Amino acid sequence: MDQEAVAPGTVRPGGRTARVRESVLRAAGDLLAERGFAQLDLTEVAARAGAGKTTVYRRWQTPAGLVADLVAEMAETSLPHADTGSLREDLRANARLVVHTLTDLRQGRLFAALIAAATSDPDAAAALRHFYDVRLAEWTPCIHAAVSRGELPPGTDPRAVLSAVSAPLYYRLLASRDPLDDTVATTAADAAYVAARAGLFTAGDPPT
Amino acid sequence: MDQEAVAPGTVRPGGRTARVRESVLRAAGDLLAERGFAQLDLTEVAARAGAGKTTVYRRWQTPAGLVADLVAEMAETSLPHADTGSLREDLRANARLVVHTLTDLRQGRLFAALIAAATSDPDAAAALRHFYDVRLAEWTPCIHAAVSRGELPPGTDPRAVLSAVSAPLYYRLLASRDPLDDTVATTAADAAYVAARAGLFTAGDPPT
Repeated sequence: MDQEAVAPGTVRPGGRTARVRESVLRAAGDLLAERGFAQLDLTEVAARAGAGKTTVYRRWQTPAGLVADLVAEMAETSLPHADTGSLREDLRANARLVVHTLTDLRQGRLFAALIAAATSDPDAAAALRHFYDVRLAEWTPCIHAAVSRGELPPGTDPRAVLSAVSAPLYYRLLASRDPLDDTVATTAADAAYVAARAGLFTAGDPPT
Repeated sequence: MDQEAVAPGTVRPGGRTARVRESVLRAAGDLLAERGFAQLDLTEVAARAGAGKTTVYRRWQTPAGLVADLVAEMAETSLPHADTGSLREDLRANARLVVHTLTDLRQGRLFAALIAAATSDPDAAAALRHFYDVRLAEWTPCIHAAVSRGELPPGTDPRAVLSAVSAPLYYRLLASRDPLDDTVATTAADAAYVAARAGLFTAGDPPT
């Protein structure tokens, strides 16, 4: 057992606790990207982060707990939405952002590992869903602005449009494993755009 | 060590080897669905299948090897494509098939586990890609027929259309974790349909 002294309640926000979290999450992200979720070990994370093993086990408890906190940190640092004045261009910017995240060597492997963890762990799944909720909330104004400009039918569901942009990109990463690039991003955005303009993402009765 | 006698090369096709594969894959599928890939243990699979541990380790070697063979078996038993005379209806049938697979308690968890395995194991990833290739080849005639009927522009890429149908369904299963039902299937199919008719899935230069 690790004999590190811990004094709960005595740390200041932004102080030692925040620094430990930063170094532990960086080490956890590195290990996830290198080896995947199945090999993520809290003792090794603690050693690589220069943090106490007891601290890491008490605060994060399990590999899934670490993954949940990693995705919470990603949600906190999510980029602001585009505002080009054109829905088609806003959606293309959104699609390129997703492609760049998923093709980044570190972030792409990290995301795949997080999604893998979420398939078997409810806490990781809830954390992942929270990440998408934050991301969707950030980009929702693009859809509302497009409705105001008359580009989209009233009642268009922002979540449905934005999910339609992301879905083909995640499908390539996880299922078909076809390559991802900016051309693919453009097609994904444009397909979502024409479907949204055709009224397929409005609330109400499904089309028959 | 397991002391089971093994006589390679003495088994007949469709005989003992086929029966062992069937029972091992059933046990592996059950354990995957119950607990996920991270808990898949070859010794336990062998015990549950009533098969020799040595046989299982020699033939499948790793949990990823088992998963690769499971997905190969799913590809072998993939259902025939629809042929309704209408592309929209064919795509809706395809989408419902995907939704029914992913929402089936056993197959859905199995698929999520397979995809999770594929994020960190190249053999599982190659096997998963092979499954999609088989499925896509089965449904490609629907797209060619639609081009012949004038429903779609010449040069439409079948893989792009069919991936567009599946993508929102997998995205819900794996990423957003929004629910899956027949209404969602219809919307996914119809969105792919309007994008395909708009010429977004033809080969050649990307739209600008």
